[in-house]
Amino acid sequence: MRIIIIGSVAAGTSVAAKARRNNLDAEIVIYEKDQDISYSACGLPYYIGEDYIERGQLSPRDPLWFKKRFAIDIFTGHEVLSLDVKEQTLQVENLQTGAVFSDEYDVLVLATGANAVSPPIEGKDADHVFYLRNIVSADKIKTYIQDKKPKTAVVVGSGFIGLEVAENLSRKGMNVTVVEALPKVMPSYDDEMSIRIKQELQEHQVQVFTDERVQVIDALTKTVRTDRGRILPADLVVLSVGVKPAVELAQKAGIKLGVTGAIAVDARMETSIAGIYAVGDCAESYLLIDGTPCYRPMGSTANKMGRIAGDVITGGDLTFRGVLGTGIVQVFDLSCGQTGYTETAAKKASYDVEVIHNIKPNQTEYFAGSSELIIKAVADRKTQKLLGVQIIGKKGVDKRLDVFVTAITFGAKVGDLAHLDLAYAPPFATTKDPVIYTGMILDNALRRGRKIITAKMLMNDRESYTVIDVRSNKDFAKGHIDGAINIPLAEIKHQAGQFAKDQGIVVHCNKGVTGNAAQNVLINLGFSKVYNLSGGYKEYKIEQGL
Amino acid sequence: MRIIIIGSVAAGTSVAAKARRNNLDAEIVIYEKDQDISYSACGLPYYIGEDYIERGQLSPRDPLWFKKRFAIDIFTGHEVLSLDVKEQTLQVENLQTGAVFSDEYDVLVLATGANAVSPPIEGKDADHVFYLRNIVSADKIKTYIQDKKPKTAVVVGSGFIGLEVAENLSRKGMNVTVVEALPKVMPSYDDEMSIRIKQELQEHQVQVFTDERVQVIDALTKTVRTDRGRILPADLVVLSVGVKPAVELAQKAGIKLGVTGAIAVDARMETSIAGIYAVGDCAESYLLIDGTPCYRPMGSTANKMGRIAGDVITGGDLTFRGVLGTGIVQVFDLSCGQTGYTETAAKKASYDVEVIHNIKPNQTEYFAGSSELIIKAVADRKTQKLLGVQIIGKKGVDKRLDVFVTAITFGAKVGDLAHLDLAYAPPFATTKDPVIYTGMILDNALRRGRKIITAKMLMNDRESYTVIDVRSNKDFAKGHIDGAINIPLAEIKHQAGQFAKDQGIVVHCNKGVTGNAAQNVLINLGFSKVYNLSGGYKEYKIEQGL
Repeated sequence: MRIIIIGSVAAGTSVAAKARRNNLDAEIVIYEKDQDISYSACGLPYYIGEDYIERGQLSPRDPLWFKKRFAIDIFTGHEVLSLDVKEQTLQVENLQTGAVFSDEYDVLVLATGANAVSPPIEGKDADHVFYLRNIVSADKIKTYIQDKKPKTAVVVGSGFIGLEVAENLSRKGMNVTVVEALPKVMPSYDDEMSIRIKQELQEHQVQVFTDERVQVIDALTKTVRTDRGRILPADLVVLSVGVKPAVELAQKAGIKLGVTGAIAVDARMETSIAGIYAVGDCAESYLLIDGTPCYRPMGSTANKMGRIAGDVITGGDLTFRGVLGTGIVQVFDLSCGQTGYTETAAKKASYDVEVIHNIKPNQTEYFAGSSELIIKAVADRKTQKLLGVQIIGKKGVDKRLDVFVTAITFGAKVGDLAHLDLAYAPPFATTKDPVIYTGMILDNALRRGRKIITAKMLMNDRESYTVIDVRSNKDFAKGHIDGAINIPLAEIKHQAGQFAKDQGIVVHCNKGVTGNAAQNVLINLGFSKVYNLSGGYKEYKIEQGL
Repeated sequence: MRIIIIGSVAAGTSVAAKARRNNLDAEIVIYEKDQDISYSACGLPYYIGEDYIERGQLSPRDPLWFKKRFAIDIFTGHEVLSLDVKEQTLQVENLQTGAVFSDEYDVLVLATGANAVSPPIEGKDADHVFYLRNIVSADKIKTYIQDKKPKTAVVVGSGFIGLEVAENLSRKGMNVTVVEALPKVMPSYDDEMSIRIKQELQEHQVQVFTDERVQVIDALTKTVRTDRGRILPADLVVLSVGVKPAVELAQKAGIKLGVTGAIAVDARMETSIAGIYAVGDCAESYLLIDGTPCYRPMGSTANKMGRIAGDVITGGDLTFRGVLGTGIVQVFDLSCGQTGYTETAAKKASYDVEVIHNIKPNQTEYFAGSSELIIKAVADRKTQKLLGVQIIGKKGVDKRLDVFVTAITFGAKVGDLAHLDLAYAPPFATTKDPVIYTGMILDNALRRGRKIITAKMLMNDRESYTVIDVRSNKDFAKGHIDGAINIPLAEIKHQAGQFAKDQGIVVHCNKGVTGNAAQNVLINLGFSKVYNLSGGYKEYKIEQGL
C-alpha cells in the first residue's frame, strides 16, 4: 500500500506517524511545498518576541528524523500541482529544480492547511508588510526587526494571532496599534468579554481601533491610513485578518467542499471521493454539541484529525467526534479562553439561552497571587445543558476552561457542575471552585426561579424594571444605575411592601452574590418577577464602558 | 420550623445559609463550642508560615454577620452535651458561664467535625507540642514561634497537613524533620509517586524518616526519640497523624455509624434517625465510582454536603453523589494531586487494573517555565473506565487533575480522553495535552495490545522477560537495567530475528515514547508478548531509588 500525504505541518505528520505505528509495510510519502515540517504555528508569535526561542526548537524534527524513525519519506520543496482521482495519480513539482513528475497512490491524504486571507489594502506588497503563517514568514519579521529596528507597528486584525503578535511586538519596545474592521477585538467573543481584552491592550500602551479598516499602507512615509482618515505610524505592518482553507487542489479534483468552504469529510476523515482523506486546517469540522459544521483551524485539532485518519487508512476504528472550538490566548497579564457557544452564536443558532456572569477569585482570596476570574456561561434552557463559556482572568483560566470542555463533552447539565469533587488547597482554588459556583448560579436560574438578567438585556428594556441596588449607601453614592433605588440587603425584607408582587424587579449588588441573597428574600416573600443582575454593578460598568 | 445545627466551621454554616436562602421563616440556630466560625482549616499551615496572612482573613464572617445577613443565630462557646432524639431536645452548656440549658428542634444537623488523632507518645502534653486543627491551635503555634524562636522542628505524620506544616516551618528558617510511621510519606499515594515527594522534601533540607515512630518527646532537652533510637532536635513538635470523625454525641444518641467510623448518612445526608442529618468531617462519604464507603474529611466536601442538607431540610431535591477523594498539596516547588483509586487501592478493591506512567511537559517545551508532569493513571480493564490518577509536577498539575476528576465523574472510558478539545496555546499546554496522551497510552494498552508493564511488576518477575533498551549506546553505557540488551530503535527491525515470537519482551526508552515505537515494530513483526516499560528508564530509576 502506498500512502501519499500532501502537507507536513501538524496534521500531515500525525497521519504518517500513526499509519506507521499501525503498519510496518506501507509506503508512506509526504510532499511539502515549504521547507519546514512538523511544527505548531501557534508558537510563531512568541518566536518573534522572545530571543531565547531558537528556530530549531520550533521544528525539532526534519525529514531525516522521520526517515530513520518511521521510514517515512518527506519531500520538502515539492508542490503537488494536480490530482487525477480516477487514475489515482498526482503531478508534483520539485520547486528547486523545476522538474515535474508523476506519482501514484493507493490512499491519498490532503493536509494542505490554510492560507492567510489577503485584505484589500493598497500597498500591502511593500517590504515592511508581513503575514505570519509559517516559520519562514516569522523569520522575515524577526530579521526585519533586527535590521531595521522599527519603532512603530500596526497589526491589522485582532484574532488570537493578531493579539499575540501585538503583545510580542510591544514587548520588543515598539509602539503598537491594532486595527480591527469588526466592532470589537477578538471578534469570536461576546461584546462585554471583548471589552476586557481591549482594556488590557490599552493598559499596556497598545492602541486599539475597532470598526475601522486600513485602506492604504504607505511605504515611503511608513504610515497607514484608515477608512476613518486616521494616519498611524507603522514602521512594520503585520496582516492578520484570518485564514481560509487551502482547497484549490481538492476543488480542481472534484472533491466536495462543505458549507464553511473547507473540505467536507465524514467521521473517518474521508472526503467525497473514496480513498481520499482530508485533515487539519483544510478540513471542515463540526461542533460536537449539535453537529453544526464549523471551520476552526487549530493545531490541536489538526493533531487529532491526523491521528484518526492515520488509524483509519491502516484499518483502525477511530472516528472524529467534533470540536468545541476551544481557544485560549494570553494577552499581557490576562488569559482569555472560550469553548462552545458564545451568547451571540447560541442565539443565532436559535437556542433559548440562560446567560450568567460569575466573578470569583481563582484561589483562596487571602493567598498571595489570588486574582479575579470572570466566567460567562451560556446554557440551553430546554435541555439544561451547558453550551459554552468564556473566561478571562490572570491565573487559572486554562484550568477552568478545560474542566468546562470536559463537562460539555460529556453532555453535562448545569446541575452536575456543583457536584464535581474538584481539587482544593489554598494555592490552587477556593473551597467552592468558580466552576462549582457557575453551576450553582445556572441551576438556581434554570430550576429554581432565581432568574438572571444581563446588563444588556436590562438596558434594552430599562423601563420594564424597577432596579434595586442592594449595596451600601456609600457604594450607591459613588455611582449607580440611572433610576435605581438603593435598599441595602438588610432592609429589603422591611421595605419590600412598597413594590407590587408581580412587578418586574432587578436587584443587584457589586458582583452578584448579595444580589442573589436579595433575590431570595423577595422570592420567598412572594414576588414573582425578580431578576438578579448578572455580574452585578461591576459587569454593568464594563458593559456600559464606565 | 426550628433548625438546630451543631458546629459552624465549613459544613454547618453552609447548611444554615442554604436553608435560609430557601426559607425565610425557619428559625436557624447554630451551637459552636469554639470561638471561630466559617473558616477553612486548609489555610492554617499558610497562616503559620506567611506573615502577610492576617487572622481576620481566615474567618472573615462572625456571628453578627450571619445574624444581619441571614437572621441566623450562632452561639459560639456553646457545647452541646447530649441529645434526646425522642423528645427532640438537646442539652447545651455555655462554656463561658457554665450554665446548662435545654433547647428543642424540629430538624437537627450534626456538623461536629473531626478531632486530631492523638498518637501514643510520651511527653506529648508538653508546652512545645502542638496539633493543628483550628485557628486557636494555629495561633498557639504562631505565638510560640514568635516568642521562642525555635530553630528545629519535628513534624509527626506526613499527610498533606503534615507536609504543608513542614514546608511552612522550613520557610520560617527552622531545620525540620518529618517522621512518618508508615513506610512512605503521603501514605495515600502509590510508592513511586510518594518517593518523588520525599525527594522534594529532602532537596529542600527537610529530613524525612519513614517507617519510624516518635516514642518520646523530651521537653527538657528539646529532642524526640524514635523507636529506632534516633534522637532528633525539636524545639517545636507538631503532631499531625490524621483526624477521626467527632461522633461521640451521635453515638450516645443511638445514631448509626458507618463502616469507616463516621456517621452513616443517605444521599439526602439524613442519618439513621429521621429528621437528624450529618454533614462535613463527621459524616461518612462514598466513592462515586462504585459506591464504596470512605472517609475523606475535606473542606470542599463539607461545603457540598452542607449545601445539600440545607436544601433537603427546606424541601429541596438535591442529593449527594459521592466523592473521588480528590486532594492536592503544594510541597515546595511540586504540586501533588490525586483523585479516585490509586493502583494499591484499586487492586485491594479487586479491580483488574491497567497502570501507566505518562511523563510529559506541561506546556510547549521551548516556552519559558515549561516543566515535566508525571501522571500515573489507573484504569479498569473490564469496563475501560478510568479509576484514578496521581499527578506530580511543578505547574499545571491542578488543571489536569480537575480535568480527570470531571472525566471520571462522567464515567469516561480511556478512549474518550484523546477526543477532548482541550485548550492549546504555548503558555498553557502542548498541542496534545498530557491528558490526551494519557488516554492514548491507556487506550493503546487496553484495546490495541500495546501492553504496559510497571517497573515494579517487571522486577518482581524479572527472569520471565528479555529487556530491550532501545536508547542510544551512549545512554545505555551511562546506566541500564541489569541484564538488558541494548538495541537502538532504528536497529530493532533488523535484529528482531534473534528473539522468539512468543517470548516475553519488555522494551523501554527513557520516558516511554520511543519504547512505544519499538513495541509497535515488534508487534507488527508478529511478536505476541511485548510490553513497554511504564515511564521508561526514568521511572525505573525512581522506583529503584537510583
